[in-house]
Amino acid sequence: MKQSTVIELFDTTLRDGAQAEGVNLSIHDKLQITERLDDFGIDIIEGGWPGSNPKDEAYFKEVRSLNLKHAKICAFGSTARFPDKVREDRNLNMLLGAETEWISIFGKTWRFHSSVTLGLTDEENEALIYRSIQFLKEQGRRVVFDAEHFFDGYKDDAAFALRMLRAAEQAGADVLALCDTNGGSLPSEISAIFKKVKQEFKTPLGIHAHNDGELAVANSLAAIEAGAVQVQGTINGIGERCGNANLCSVIPNLLLKMGLQTRGRVQLKGLTNLSHFVYEMANLAPNNRSAFVGKSAFTHKGGIHVSSVLKDSRMYEHIDPAQVGNRRHVLVSDLSGQSNIRYKAQELGIDIANDRQFSKKLVQYIKNLEYQGFQFDGAEASFELLLRSELNTYSPFFEIIYAKINVMLDKEETDYSEAVLKVKVEEEIEHTASDGNGPVNALDNALRKAIVRFYPEIAGTQLVDYKVRVLGEKDGTGARVRVLVETSDGQNSWATVGVSHNIIKASLQALTDSINYKIFQTRRERQMAGQSESIS
Amino acid sequence: MKQSTVIELFDTTLRDGAQAEGVNLSIHDKLQITERLDDFGIDIIEGGWPGSNPKDEAYFKEVRSLNLKHAKICAFGSTARFPDKVREDRNLNMLLGAETEWISIFGKTWRFHSSVTLGLTDEENEALIYRSIQFLKEQGRRVVFDAEHFFDGYKDDAAFALRMLRAAEQAGADVLALCDTNGGSLPSEISAIFKKVKQEFKTPLGIHAHNDGELAVANSLAAIEAGAVQVQGTINGIGERCGNANLCSVIPNLLLKMGLQTRGRVQLKGLTNLSHFVYEMANLAPNNRSAFVGKSAFTHKGGIHVSSVLKDSRMYEHIDPAQVGNRRHVLVSDLSGQSNIRYKAQELGIDIANDRQFSKKLVQYIKNLEYQGFQFDGAEASFELLLRSELNTYSPFFEIIYAKINVMLDKEETDYSEAVLKVKVEEEIEHTASDGNGPVNALDNALRKAIVRFYPEIAGTQLVDYKVRVLGEKDGTGARVRVLVETSDGQNSWATVGVSHNIIKASLQALTDSINYKIFQTRRERQMAGQSESIS
Repeated sequence: MKQSTVIELFDTTLRDGAQAEGVNLSIHDKLQITERLDDFGIDIIEGGWPGSNPKDEAYFKEVRSLNLKHAKICAFGSTARFPDKVREDRNLNMLLGAETEWISIFGKTWRFHSSVTLGLTDEENEALIYRSIQFLKEQGRRVVFDAEHFFDGYKDDAAFALRMLRAAEQAGADVLALCDTNGGSLPSEISAIFKKVKQEFKTPLGIHAHNDGELAVANSLAAIEAGAVQVQGTINGIGERCGNANLCSVIPNLLLKMGLQTRGRVQLKGLTNLSHFVYEMANLAPNNRSAFVGKSAFTHKGGIHVSSVLKDSRMYEHIDPAQVGNRRHVLVSDLSGQSNIRYKAQELGIDIANDRQFSKKLVQYIKNLEYQGFQFDGAEASFELLLRSELNTYSPFFEIIYAKINVMLDKEETDYSEAVLKVKVEEEIEHTASDGNGPVNALDNALRKAIVRFYPEIAGTQLVDYKVRVLGEKDGTGARVRVLVETSDGQNSWATVGVSHNIIKASLQALTDSINYKIFQTRRERQMAGQSESIS
Repeated sequence: MKQSTVIELFDTTLRDGAQAEGVNLSIHDKLQITERLDDFGIDIIEGGWPGSNPKDEAYFKEVRSLNLKHAKICAFGSTARFPDKVREDRNLNMLLGAETEWISIFGKTWRFHSSVTLGLTDEENEALIYRSIQFLKEQGRRVVFDAEHFFDGYKDDAAFALRMLRAAEQAGADVLALCDTNGGSLPSEISAIFKKVKQEFKTPLGIHAHNDGELAVANSLAAIEAGAVQVQGTINGIGERCGNANLCSVIPNLLLKMGLQTRGRVQLKGLTNLSHFVYEMANLAPNNRSAFVGKSAFTHKGGIHVSSVLKDSRMYEHIDPAQVGNRRHVLVSDLSGQSNIRYKAQELGIDIANDRQFSKKLVQYIKNLEYQGFQFDGAEASFELLLRSELNTYSPFFEIIYAKINVMLDKEETDYSEAVLKVKVEEEIEHTASDGNGPVNALDNALRKAIVRFYPEIAGTQLVDYKVRVLGEKDGTGARVRVLVETSDGQNSWATVGVSHNIIKASLQALTDSINYKIFQTRRERQMAGQSESIS
């Protein structure tokens, strides 16, 4: 099979993916994702169900004006409702109205579903499938038949399942996509059933897997090994319940592990970027542990692992992260030695490789901070400030003279938080105050208010994440806390850390670092721009 | 294979799981997780690497005092460093010092790793494996040999990989665990290699899979189908990079799909709870889309799906969610949950089964609280108070009139926190104040000071855990926080919860519940003692 088999990539992020809990894509989002999928090299993009809602209907109108390079658009819908009224069927006519080259329609292949839930005779169900596909084919469309519940159906009543599939083949379907609708099948079952179907049908087969057993990627690969030539899935695996087969894992496995080719030329180096883009559009927090594309996918923490990886990355990396547009991260943690810190400094463009004395001193200093509970794992901006401060290339842009925080709670369940702040900035004293949603929010507000007059570049920054971790839990409320803050200026984001037994103090440290980092980076960019001007 | 094969569950959440980015478990956390894993039915719990850090060393001391029902503890480490100094090897002696029944040691089975990275001859590597295991076996321990990089090693140089495995078998290893260390193997490769190894070795085989190709669960199942009898993994799949094989998916697949048995009796209904508990302990946000245990795993959104599911849940659910302690969520209706709550009430000895009206009202009330961010999974004491309050069998023993918290930070890095509290207890007003390590500690101190005069039973209680989780991270410091507090009186411990956008307010809720719970339980015990006295 290797080399000669060409796999067709069928993306349903915009249709099945949009069914995920909490996901709500606008038409604009859908059009943007369509362009990115096309750029990436997807062959067929299932854009929505035109018969189900006006938004999807509008999408199919607007998508025509996109200038796609390679991808074909597909509209999704169900078979007709009545066997004798196929031509007047509203859903089928909406599908045709979408004016797409491809149409995917789903039909019942589980006898239980067809007869018990819908009350159809076998003949009726067969006629619905046959006539619906025949009608669409007559209109010159290419048709994917989504055999709903195929594997559950086959296990329950194989003859029925195969009969329905045969109806679709005879009506001229271009692809028979076997769906593991409930997502509960095992790879060994998928493989065995695919092999049997493959023997009996000439039409190209597809696989549509769901992740309810955490096996959707494996089930897709098993189907491909057993003869499927079209794979359906979504970016990041988003979809109903546990989601669909994750194309961000399926595709690199096909290309890098199984030595297969895809119909279109896939821009594999754009995979990580595509994944983040779709998370952003879907307003979902990225899963850092995702295979291939996650932030932690090539992250090394343990000292032994790090020194081995630096010798030869194959030791703890199954592929070169650059192949999928990801990169290696080495964490500065309590397990780290000098090699971690030198690597980290290098990443920031700071060369300390030759200064063994300095890097040894720095390791000791960082270990002390980590002993106190600091963690630079997720706080690279704080680490950079610390490093530059030790190198005397950075000093803070302002000084907190004092901060007072008052919180008042009463029996009517109302609460009031206020922060009073005295800050020294460029030899001026700024004395200000603000209230907020809670004590930390009040402090955040007051701090920005005090600094923004001097450094307007912080006006566009915004906290996007705030995490609290209690250290040494046995001390109860007297324990130390570590606060991690992530800030964004719309383009980049950076994370900072603070540690104290006092949550307000820890928060103030992290917020202070965050603002200093932004000011430092802005000045540095200006400096570099200035230098290149003077050179030119 | 079905029915007769018994699979051994080997959990490494506390060792490999703790290597995950951002995860940092305290000894107290590790001990609590150990107890939960034992309750659940895990056979072997790998607790840590005693030779690598003092925290793991301390864990192995303290774990001995736990009263485990079934699980055996395992200590993890590497083979000796020098073949001729096995008996003096520091790591091996630390392993023995951990005093566990099981020891797992890893050795190199990839020639590239052994010869290039470590510069060992084949004979040296073989001797390290053989003599290390032999030494541990002489001391009467049961040994798992973790064959590091086995699959990459086998693909690279099968003779070398098998030779090292043979050394381990000859030295008396009880289990040969084949590790896909880099997590990049395909199920078909795992299956083929396992079958070959199975033919040549008599020792029971194990599988240790990583998730770098999103295939760890499938690879574990493929190994089991090909003859593995021990499966290694972590709860929620947490671990380095993309994580380990997720036992929350592996176990239900084994039991519900493959018809296999596990050595211990697994409390499968506790799976969802265990998953949430470990997420809480690891301070990781739960993945709602997780197979089996995720909040969305049985969530139905689409109108067609919902009505079909209500007719027959098999239509869109691969298993009954109750089998894994999860529940159906129907986003458009409120039919779910009553049975859960009745179940929980029953656990507390409160029978609300017959009062449908009440239980329906309660479901609605709890749903509202959960919508606000409350979570009673890890806060059963708060749930009990809420339930009893709704049943009018409990009302709070005191009322907070107001609480004022003042925090002062100055540029000398000193900080000062004070809480002023006015509380009404038994018609008396107590007006008091206290300082503390931070604002929450000051509040805790002031609250105890105010109440202890009236209810001296709280004098012996102490906070043992305080956790903060930020909800809706995207709102930065204005987000809501959930505070979980665990309190102990030396004999029992109980957990309470508070939620607010204001961390002080959330903390006060949890602290208030904690004190009320102790007073309530003391009175109840006295009452019951009084009753039995009057009876006798």
